[in-house]
Parts: sequence; C-alpha cells; structure tokens
Amino acid sequence: MAVSVLRLGHRFARDARISTHVALTARAFGAEKIAYDAKATDVKESVEDVVKQWGGSFTVEFTDTPMKYLKSFTGLKVHLTMYGLSLNEVIGKITKRGGDLLVVVGGKKVPSEVYELVDYNVSVGTQPHSEVAALAVFLDRYFRGGEVDIEYKKAKLKVVPQAKGKKVLSE
Amino acid sequence: MAVSVLRLGHRFARDARISTHVALTARAFGAEKIAYDAKATDVKESVEDVVKQWGGSFTVEFTDTPMKYLKSFTGLKVHLTMYGLSLNEVIGKITKRGGDLLVVVGGKKVPSEVYELVDYNVSVGTQPHSEVAALAVFLDRYFRGGEVDIEYKKAKLKVVPQAKGKKVLSE
Repeated sequence: MAVSVLRLGHRFARDARISTHVALTARAFGAEKIAYDAKATDVKESVEDVVKQWGGSFTVEFTDTPMKYLKSFTGLKVHLTMYGLSLNEVIGKITKRGGDLLVVVGGKKVPSEVYELVDYNVSVGTQPHSEVAALAVFLDRYFRGGEVDIEYKKAKLKVVPQAKGKKVLSE
Repeated sequence: MAVSVLRLGHRFARDARISTHVALTARAFGAEKIAYDAKATDVKESVEDVVKQWGGSFTVEFTDTPMKYLKSFTGLKVHLTMYGLSLNEVIGKITKRGGDLLVVVGGKKVPSEVYELVDYNVSVGTQPHSEVAALAVFLDRYFRGGEVDIEYKKAKLKVVPQAKGKKVLSE
C-alpha cells in the first residue's frame, strides 16, 4: 500500500514555495512520492535536500502528460477539490478500500476531465483555502493520525519532542 | 469560545502567498481572526475579498508588538512547532481546556521567548513541512472534524457538494 500525490497546475517561479510546501506535506504525512505537471526543478532540489537530512525515501518526479499519468494509475484516485463530496462523508469508504492511492491536488485551473477520471472528488471544506491544508488534513484522516509520529529511516537529523525549546539529534 | 491565530515571521512579498494560505486556512478551519507581525496589506485585501464572497466574519489585523500581543492574550496559547510535544499526545488536554485559544504559527525564525510564553508547544509531526499544513491539521483535530462542514453567514457564494463537477449557488 503506497500513497502518491499528483500536483496539477504548477506555474514555476510564482508557485515554487507553495509547491514545495505541498511536497513536504505529502512526505511528512506519509505519501511516498509526488509528481508535478511541470519541470519544477527547484522544488525537486529543495525536497531532495530535506530527504537527505531527514530521511525516508520520498521522491519527486515530473510528467508531461498528467492525464495519461492519472489514467494509467491502477489504485484508488482521489481529487481534492472544494466542489467535491464532504471529507466527513466519504473518508470512511476511502480508507476501507486500501491498496495504492493517488491523491490529486490542483491549483486554480484543473481540467474538467480530472473530475471524471478519479474515483472520488473530495472537499476538505467547501471554502476556498489551500491545497497544502487540504492535502494535510486528508492524509491525517486517511492515516488516522498515525503519520504524525512516523520515524524515517536513514535520517541524519531527528527531533526529540520537548515541552519548551528545541532538541535535535544529529548523526 | 473563539480561536485566533498569530502569524509570526511574515516577510512581505516573498511570503504573501503562503501568508494568504495561512489566513484562508485559519478561516476555513474555524478560527475567527488572524494577526500578523507585519503590515501584510495585500494579504488582508485578498482575505477580505474572500470573506465578502464566502461569508462569515473572519478578520485580519496587524501588530507591531507580537510578544506583547501574546502576553496579553488571556486564553490558552498553543505554538505549533516541529520541536514541540506530539499532537497525538497533547490534543486531548488542549481540547478539554475550552475557552479562548490563540494558535501561534511561525516562519523559520521564531523568537525563543515564544516557546516560554505559550502553554503548549505542539508538533504536528517532527518533520519539516508547512505552517499551513500544521495549522489545518491542528484545527481539524481541535474541532474534531466538524469545521469541515461549517456554513458561513452572509455568503454570496455557496458550494453544493457534488460527486463530479462543480455546483455553486450565488445570491
């Protein structure tokens, strides 16, 4: 069982920080990889630096043909959109399915084809907010909170939780 | 009972999009206001446009003295930081407290004083990710998922959840 993320609508420089937040959130909340519909090289570099320091095996890839990527994925496909069915209503069905999962997150303009190609269009609230927030909450619900305490293999840095202040172990 | 957010470390142009995502996430996940430690006028305008269209009474304010702001807050103060205690460990105690809540979210450099001034330093995972993700997941846990289905008063636009496609009612 693996969770991947497909990030649509990346628009280079303007979106670099948001796209980096999307990728780091995917990694921190238990996904194994993210694919962008553009060559987001700067994002890939930032994220790979984090993986080198903080461990795990999260990967960033690019696709020129995101609709083909979506069609050829064989597991469950979930698109996060404020227009979809309520997370509270469908999360039970989605977690029950198991197997591989692809979570699609868009920017402002998602091709209407996406709504048809996925198994579920899911809204993490019907208010405009953030693809970073939607992805985080969806994955937190999907993994039932367990992802928050994940420990990554091959980490050079490791935080030791503290009531006050900071404690980081380095290899 | 009201939830407010204090956003530290806003650095103008560079951070405008992330700061806007933080504010919209605060609003969408049930907070009533956000305060910035800088005059983030562009953020305030974007967020006020959303409030006009999508309803509710979320407000954006600025403070020149964020430490004073933090000290003078009389309810429970929670700082979201990857160095804090695990969300899974402390969320029960925090929700049990009730009353007004101030959630502090930082950028990279948060003054060490903040760690001492708050009641709880809480980590939404000990991995580097995003203040947007941390805020969303914290509030989702705090409101036990109910905030996802909030309806806002005085909304000109309202999404009607759909399995496929988009349906928006406008006043």
